[in-house]
Amino acid sequence: MPIVKIEMFAGRTHAQKAELARAITDAIVSIAQTTPEAVTIVFEDVEKDNWAEAGKLASDA
Amino acid sequence: MPIVKIEMFAGRTHAQKAELARAITDAIVSIAQTTPEAVTIVFEDVEKDNWAEAGKLASDA
Amino acid sequence: MPIVKIEMFAGRTHAQKAELARAITDAIVSIAQTTPEAVTIVFEDVEKDNWAEAGKLASDA
Amino acid sequence: MPIVKIEMFAGRTHAQKAELARAITDAIVSIAQTTPEAVTIVFEDVEKDNWAEAGKLASDA
Amino acid sequence: MPIVKIEMFAGRTHAQKAELARAITDAIVSIAQTTPEAVTIVFEDVEKDNWAEAGKLASDA
Amino acid sequence: MPIVKIEMFAGRTHAQKAELARAITDAIVSIAQTTPEAVTIVFEDVEKDNWAEAGKLASDA
Repeated sequence: MPIVKIEMFAGRTHAQKAELARAITDAIVSIAQTTPEAVTIVFEDVEKDNWAEAGKLASDA
Repeated sequence: MPIVKIEMFAGRTHAQKAELARAITDAIVSIAQTTPEAVTIVFEDVEKDNWAEAGKLASDA
Repeated sequence: MPIVKIEMFAGRTHAQKAELARAITDAIVSIAQTTPEAVTIVFEDVEKDNWAEAGKLASDA
Repeated sequence: MPIVKIEMFAGRTHAQKAELARAITDAIVSIAQTTPEAVTIVFEDVEKDNWAEAGKLASDA
Repeated sequence: MPIVKIEMFAGRTHAQKAELARAITDAIVSIAQTTPEAVTIVFEDVEKDNWAEAGKLASDA
Repeated sequence: MPIVKIEMFAGRTHAQKAELARAITDAIVSIAQTTPEAVTIVFEDVEKDNWAEAGKLASDA
């Protein structure tokens, strides 16, 4: 039932995403007292042209 | 005014998305009593590397 | 695996949401060829103060 | 702290996104009284096959 | 067609949201070359218990 | 820069959210190689009337 959406800059490897999925699911299961099967995680890769902080695109920073 | 966001694995065809858009809009119009023009639907195609259930990426399952 | 997020004005009844959940799940199962168990739907009730079209809050329209 | 997510049809240029990021950040800073550093903006480019109004995909309209 | 979602701490007034809706819609219309009617803005008020930076809830910072 | 959105049933305590924020931030910092300050987490509490699995609202299950 928990749904986790993670927006990060593109470029993380398959191995990093696999490890993140495992670690975050473990944290939610133990702290929020649910089952692993109930946890869905969706990653969204964001290009530097599509992310701005302080009014400036990351691709221009 | 209703905005519907649908995250699914990539691979659905144009025809499937067109049929989903029509069927879901019809359901919302008749059940939630609004007009078709008020309904916006956005599909988001998710790769198997970007989706995890039970702590495991779908591309590893 | 499909996750559906529906943002609507607050005020829909429990019965309307139950009927929407059933109808939209049925449409996704038959058109996108998945199982009912794979479909998650999340409703988000939005107040008229929190929604604007054409630059005007719905509560002022 | 404000996070702004903007879903638009794909096709806006880098220059348009840079100008949008600056203008929207300026508006939030002056109206909501925060600092530029606190404002994050994420653009999401949506293909016409992934957007429907009134039950019809934009690519079919 | 652009949909803008703004997550901010709860506490902004109706007048601030109305002014934000107008200013952001104006910016999108002039920079992204669309019409005001095509712009939808949704505000989401977030409590300090529901927001964390650097691993710490804003209500504890 | 990573933004994490967590949708869960309402009812988690302040202490559980604080611990989740710390654990998930730690996981992202060590696995995705970023700094704690770059990680934003937003929790969204969802009522059982607003969540459906397999076409049935959680409040009816």
